[in-house]
Amino acid sequence: MSKKVAVIMGSDSDWPVVKSACAQLKEFGIPYEAHILSAHRTPAEAAAFASGARANGFGAIICAAGMAAHLAGAFAANTTLPVIGIPMKGGAMDGLDALLATVQMPSGIPVATVALNGAKNAAVLAAQILAVSDDALAAKLDAARVAMSEQICAKEAKLQQDLETI
Amino acid sequence: MSKKVAVIMGSDSDWPVVKSACAQLKEFGIPYEAHILSAHRTPAEAAAFASGARANGFGAIICAAGMAAHLAGAFAANTTLPVIGIPMKGGAMDGLDALLATVQMPSGIPVATVALNGAKNAAVLAAQILAVSDDALAAKLDAARVAMSEQICAKEAKLQQDLETI
Amino acid sequence: MSKKVAVIMGSDSDWPVVKSACAQLKEFGIPYEAHILSAHRTPAEAAAFASGARANGFGAIICAAGMAAHLAGAFAANTTLPVIGIPMKGGAMDGLDALLATVQMPSGIPVATVALNGAKNAAVLAAQILAVSDDALAAKLDAARVAMSEQICAKEAKLQQDLETI
Amino acid sequence: MSKKVAVIMGSDSDWPVVKSACAQLKEFGIPYEAHILSAHRTPAEAAAFASGARANGFGAIICAAGMAAHLAGAFAANTTLPVIGIPMKGGAMDGLDALLATVQMPSGIPVATVALNGAKNAAVLAAQILAVSDDALAAKLDAARVAMSEQICAKEAKLQQDLETI
Amino acid sequence: MSKKVAVIMGSDSDWPVVKSACAQLKEFGIPYEAHILSAHRTPAEAAAFASGARANGFGAIICAAGMAAHLAGAFAANTTLPVIGIPMKGGAMDGLDALLATVQMPSGIPVATVALNGAKNAAVLAAQILAVSDDALAAKLDAARVAMSEQICAKEAKLQQDLETI
Amino acid sequence: MSKKVAVIMGSDSDWPVVKSACAQLKEFGIPYEAHILSAHRTPAEAAAFASGARANGFGAIICAAGMAAHLAGAFAANTTLPVIGIPMKGGAMDGLDALLATVQMPSGIPVATVALNGAKNAAVLAAQILAVSDDALAAKLDAARVAMSEQICAKEAKLQQDLETI
Amino acid sequence: MSKKVAVIMGSDSDWPVVKSACAQLKEFGIPYEAHILSAHRTPAEAAAFASGARANGFGAIICAAGMAAHLAGAFAANTTLPVIGIPMKGGAMDGLDALLATVQMPSGIPVATVALNGAKNAAVLAAQILAVSDDALAAKLDAARVAMSEQICAKEAKLQQDLETI
Amino acid sequence: MSKKVAVIMGSDSDWPVVKSACAQLKEFGIPYEAHILSAHRTPAEAAAFASGARANGFGAIICAAGMAAHLAGAFAANTTLPVIGIPMKGGAMDGLDALLATVQMPSGIPVATVALNGAKNAAVLAAQILAVSDDALAAKLDAARVAMSEQICAKEAKLQQDLETI
Repeated sequence: MSKKVAVIMGSDSDWPVVKSACAQLKEFGIPYEAHILSAHRTPAEAAAFASGARANGFGAIICAAGMAAHLAGAFAANTTLPVIGIPMKGGAMDGLDALLATVQMPSGIPVATVALNGAKNAAVLAAQILAVSDDALAAKLDAARVAMSEQICAKEAKLQQDLETI
Repeated sequence: MSKKVAVIMGSDSDWPVVKSACAQLKEFGIPYEAHILSAHRTPAEAAAFASGARANGFGAIICAAGMAAHLAGAFAANTTLPVIGIPMKGGAMDGLDALLATVQMPSGIPVATVALNGAKNAAVLAAQILAVSDDALAAKLDAARVAMSEQICAKEAKLQQDLETI
Repeated sequence: MSKKVAVIMGSDSDWPVVKSACAQLKEFGIPYEAHILSAHRTPAEAAAFASGARANGFGAIICAAGMAAHLAGAFAANTTLPVIGIPMKGGAMDGLDALLATVQMPSGIPVATVALNGAKNAAVLAAQILAVSDDALAAKLDAARVAMSEQICAKEAKLQQDLETI
Repeated sequence: MSKKVAVIMGSDSDWPVVKSACAQLKEFGIPYEAHILSAHRTPAEAAAFASGARANGFGAIICAAGMAAHLAGAFAANTTLPVIGIPMKGGAMDGLDALLATVQMPSGIPVATVALNGAKNAAVLAAQILAVSDDALAAKLDAARVAMSEQICAKEAKLQQDLETI
Repeated sequence: MSKKVAVIMGSDSDWPVVKSACAQLKEFGIPYEAHILSAHRTPAEAAAFASGARANGFGAIICAAGMAAHLAGAFAANTTLPVIGIPMKGGAMDGLDALLATVQMPSGIPVATVALNGAKNAAVLAAQILAVSDDALAAKLDAARVAMSEQICAKEAKLQQDLETI
Repeated sequence: MSKKVAVIMGSDSDWPVVKSACAQLKEFGIPYEAHILSAHRTPAEAAAFASGARANGFGAIICAAGMAAHLAGAFAANTTLPVIGIPMKGGAMDGLDALLATVQMPSGIPVATVALNGAKNAAVLAAQILAVSDDALAAKLDAARVAMSEQICAKEAKLQQDLETI
Repeated sequence: MSKKVAVIMGSDSDWPVVKSACAQLKEFGIPYEAHILSAHRTPAEAAAFASGARANGFGAIICAAGMAAHLAGAFAANTTLPVIGIPMKGGAMDGLDALLATVQMPSGIPVATVALNGAKNAAVLAAQILAVSDDALAAKLDAARVAMSEQICAKEAKLQQDLETI
Repeated sequence: MSKKVAVIMGSDSDWPVVKSACAQLKEFGIPYEAHILSAHRTPAEAAAFASGARANGFGAIICAAGMAAHLAGAFAANTTLPVIGIPMKGGAMDGLDALLATVQMPSGIPVATVALNGAKNAAVLAAQILAVSDDALAAKLDAARVAMSEQICAKEAKLQQDLETI
């Protein structure tokens, strides 16, 4: 059976952004769990979850956090599963602090960082990771690309109409 | 047989940094290819490589580029394999430009970004991705973590000696 | 007959800004086309458009994109026509990311970058480029400068009235 | 006869970088002049040169300056020829100040900005501008692209040799 | 009779901020003129005003401009009177671009730069400059400081009341 | 007996900077321990040390780390002792990344952050914390201030000599 | 009797943020005073307060200021008590200016800097400092951590309900 | 007799840069004093010097400081003489921290900020301030401008020779 994806957020205030990761995983038919775990407020629980993740059937972990965003790093320190970090916008420097705190990991402990608030892309990346050994999922990813391209064509058609009004 | 990892750099000047990715892959026993392909100077060749990568037996693609670092994005646009981006130091803002150009990808086309010049971590991440469906590789990753921890202990012992000289 | 200008945007969300480029070109009587083409979502179509642009009667190409703004660079990689890049505001660093991703091009592949959201100036620059071999257009550009200067004078007159109310 | 390109620098300390623009123009067979003119130290001379440039046979003007880099803007204020700005590295913020001071021009007065220290690309852009109405020059530009691509291939071949030593 | 202060802005959109400089000058009883002059749209008029400013009875010049803020520098290039630069917020980088373009002047041509949107402080600085040789004005400046200090005391008293409601 | 100070570094490469914290503590006669513990490479050991620190006689903890500097935060998450963070220069953004990753802690879990590479000041701050309930130590701190002031006076005297050579 | 904490702000406009420091101190039962004192508008009063703080029964001083945030530094220069700096958002770079002006103190004069607008954390840090020699207060800090952890658990429970609606 | 200029630096390490301010003042024949005074290490002495400066015959004060550069602000808080701030390079952000800490002063207390390490320009600005009421000094400033312009002409002549070697 397919590996699960864990979607972890440091605070419930991240949920409005993070839920689009869950929606994307659901759309691809990938089983997932979502949890609130904090690197600073529940450090022991976070470490325990990460340590047991592979044994518990997870194939990738998505971590969303803002400001001094340690969550993805704290998970990466306790598992060798791929950990995907979503730096959250807002706070002191509107996300640049979170981006740097997520991506600048020391040698040996990578975090696969996506764009600020990039929850949907974190889910797509998790799907790409699982699809390396799952051809059906890979086919779904390719189909989603075709759909994106068709959306652009539809917008192009609309633009040509708008051009007449300039 | 195991999937291969492609290690792509935009310029041969990136090689002194990028080769540590190759060395790490070799250490894990992961087959890989390394190539110079430029998003701007050989765009057709780069697109063709990316488009055919899954069919050609690759499981992940590592792209290293600096300045207006388009390489990882150009690969991600042409494949649904996981693409790992290494922003290279140097350029206008000593790498911040490359980091932002690598990580801030549009919705639907993620690039798994690692730290500036993070070639070794890019290889570790590629290994983590392949290890999702390869238990032997996962065991190697866990063993590497134990070794890292033991290195810290050795350095701690040396520090206690140094302390006596303060 | 006069060369055309292509106005390309990466997303229809750029249109409210980009349309002022079209309006400016129209005001100068310069023929143009506007299209939505994405470096990441429709890479093949974008490359094909750029490759054929000179043969299809274009004299300059304007590309608008935000975040990891690869669009202008992707066009510049596939044509030797002048490519003008408009970095769009928004994204991780409110446009600084787009500015750096647009301007920091590698040697041999320039992008003529204008200010953030500088759609009108992109059109003026395209007109200046075409005017190098079109004296009538050059005269229009000079006339537009005189009109700008007269606008300043009108505003100066109004300021002198406002001053009395301090 | 072909239009000339003016290469202006704000200080003789810019010459080691700027001369590669001259070398590139010479390689393309484009006539050029190079001058030291300062927006702040010789403002009248700079304005006079810009005002008369079109009448004096110039088709594009390249301006290189650092720090509070006003030179390109001061030229653009006094001509409707295309003005290409090279922000110079060094100084307070290692060039970011020069980049912003060059690119963030007000509406109506564009400066076509290239990368920090991008003297060669400024010359390529000037050539692209002149080539809009000069097919022979356009052919030279296309040939230069082919040569660049071939250089990459040569480096790729060398890389495959280096790979054996890892 | 007392020297005048010139208050120059690059655009009428700067007036809502700049008028507080005029109000402050009026409060100190310092004669002033306010004008719209653009370094890029009316460069000749700006240079002429600066060149004649000392002869026309001015003792200091305040220049407000945003983005690639060349106005203060263009004035400083054409006079040896003290030129005070107000970088305006807004635009690409919310004023950091304007600050750097104003303050990073080359050797020999200083601009006395105040805070972003610091129109009131520009006027206070102009007053401080004139007060070097005007004891009555110096006394007014000292009195304004005492008033500021008393305002703080009044706010402190109010705070002590607010504290009881915590 | 006096509380101890723990001086923790994430890597032995931090030691050349961090040892000045130890030297300063020794100068004040404050007992200390120094250790290498990594938030990412030895997370369990780091958490254990922090959790037991108060019971083991520590009164303050100094943590030095660079890049995505999680060390101070990881300690603060596991103790309510004051944790002092030293962001280390070097790496991607020459320390700005480490500064933001250290200081931007979430509500409830502060890290007392000092300047980049501010090892000596971290020790002074630790001494100030212990001195709140230790009058003898407070007196030593006051004496150190007087000594600093006297150093300035000595340098001022030397400057007056240097002035004669201008 | 317990030492007091001084809460100083540079302007009454900081009060809406700073009052959460007072509320937190009150919750811990720590006596405090709050005052408006400005490093620039009431420098003598600020210096006098700092100089006498230890003798007047204070154990820590919290200073909040924005822009060129000198307040904490001015206090630190006049006392050897621990000074906690809260950089306030707003200003040229939305608080990065205040953060750097607060944290980058010279050797010998530390300021314990917390996150931008981190008023609550400043109070927690002050409490941690006083708790080094006050076991009852340390117990309150530990209890507050347990409460935070329980809040996370409650939010996790709510999240599991929300997940069903995706 | 002419007013004096005070040249204050926060540390003797600033002297290699600051001495060019003294040299420039000497060249203009302006009497000056140079001193080391620290906002943080000798705050009382700094405040006393500033408070008495006008009465002691000074007409302007130049302050050079780096990092959390409070020196100019501390002087401005204690005098209504014009205070010129030189932000020094080095520190967390290579001088951007010092620039922002110097220029972003609160309303009512301006600091006339010059470029990073702009010691010569600080002296020129001081001379411009004194020249408002000193026609002989104004004439010297105008002569210095002419000399600068002539230097550019000499460099232009040399450039024309260098051009032949390309």
